Amino acid sequence: MTLSPTPRSTIKRGKNRAATDRSELYAVLDAGLVCHLAVVVDGAPVVLPTGYGRDGDTLYLHGSTGARTLREAAAGLPVSVAVTLLDGIVYARSVFDHSMNYRCAVVHGVATPVTDPAAKSHGLRVLVEHLSPGSWDYARQPTPRELAATAVLALDLAEASVKIRTGPPSDEESSPVWAGVLPVVTTYGTPEPCPLLAEGTAVPEHVSGRR
Amino acid sequence: MTLSPTPRSTIKRGKNRAATDRSELYAVLDAGLVCHLAVVVDGAPVVLPTGYGRDGDTLYLHGSTGARTLREAAAGLPVSVAVTLLDGIVYARSVFDHSMNYRCAVVHGVATPVTDPAAKSHGLRVLVEHLSPGSWDYARQPTPRELAATAVLALDLAEASVKIRTGPPSDEESSPVWAGVLPVVTTYGTPEPCPLLAEGTAVPEHVSGRR
Repeated sequence: MTLSPTPRSTIKRGKNRAATDRSELYAVLDAGLVCHLAVVVDGAPVVLPTGYGRDGDTLYLHGSTGARTLREAAAGLPVSVAVTLLDGIVYARSVFDHSMNYRCAVVHGVATPVTDPAAKSHGLRVLVEHLSPGSWDYARQPTPRELAATAVLALDLAEASVKIRTGPPSDEESSPVWAGVLPVVTTYGTPEPCPLLAEGTAVPEHVSGRR
Repeated sequence: MTLSPTPRSTIKRGKNRAATDRSELYAVLDAGLVCHLAVVVDGAPVVLPTGYGRDGDTLYLHGSTGARTLREAAAGLPVSVAVTLLDGIVYARSVFDHSMNYRCAVVHGVATPVTDPAAKSHGLRVLVEHLSPGSWDYARQPTPRELAATAVLALDLAEASVKIRTGPPSDEESSPVWAGVLPVVTTYGTPEPCPLLAEGTAVPEHVSGRR
């Protein structure tokens, strides 16, 4: 299935970097941890980082029911969501051709609040399992009060674009200057136990084995 | 000097995570590499990742003069810019208290185009030195044609907020469940030379020594 069905999700600049397969959209969304959510408040854009999770062609977002950004989105305002993974710094022979290697997905749409209790619980499960796979079944699940305090939004992935840059710098001029890519690598460190833990509490495999 | 002088840059949710010193804003902006720029196009928000650089209380943004997002910003439209650094996944005893450790700066304002040649060259230098410190003096500097093809915008850092979460999960309930933080660590890998380089071209210190 292909992407870019609408004018605003059709990439115009750097077409050679546009990915056109839906599987590439899924791959970028599944590899990221934080998205940037933009909404319009009083005519001005507001962008904020937030967690998310994907289930099929639905992107779930969440936050406190008191957060203005999410309240605006819940009212049916259009949103834009970007997930960006930085893979490297591209050093070219010219400063003009310096660049970044990255994978970026941008989704446009109208986010709708998920209020049905079962659907909301499912959305939260998707969000939690994206942030911390294995936690939903391992940790204590939400109480009705906690569920009520959390706003869950669903955004359809119908209108989305993906842009990916890989490889060496694009300038080919002859020069004694070094050019290439400095990879940016994101990894997980050693788990840091909560100071309140009972001594000897083992780190579970879904945390210690996370890659 | 303190931050948050306006209602929209005053953090309302999670006040305990709000940083109030301007030096913390600088630290987050200087530590990030990519920002997310939001503008309003046809009444809808559009968010995109882009490079940036800071000089004092000015944030520089740039892009192709053909990119619609930057053209809109150059017309004097309000923008919102977020720089987010993810530091860890917070595993709590309850899924409700799962969280992330992060540092995030959000700037609101009206971006103005930098057109004076000397000022534009300065802005580009700030941008390049943020992306790749040492490259401006090492690589070939922009030709007049390259300068003309690049749009540089300046955004004043007057209206900004910083939110930082650190430390263990916040729930204190007694539970045999492991809780703690899985650090997210971003590092640079081994430089990958461009295949077109003359054999034996040494990796310069500003690349190999980057931390």
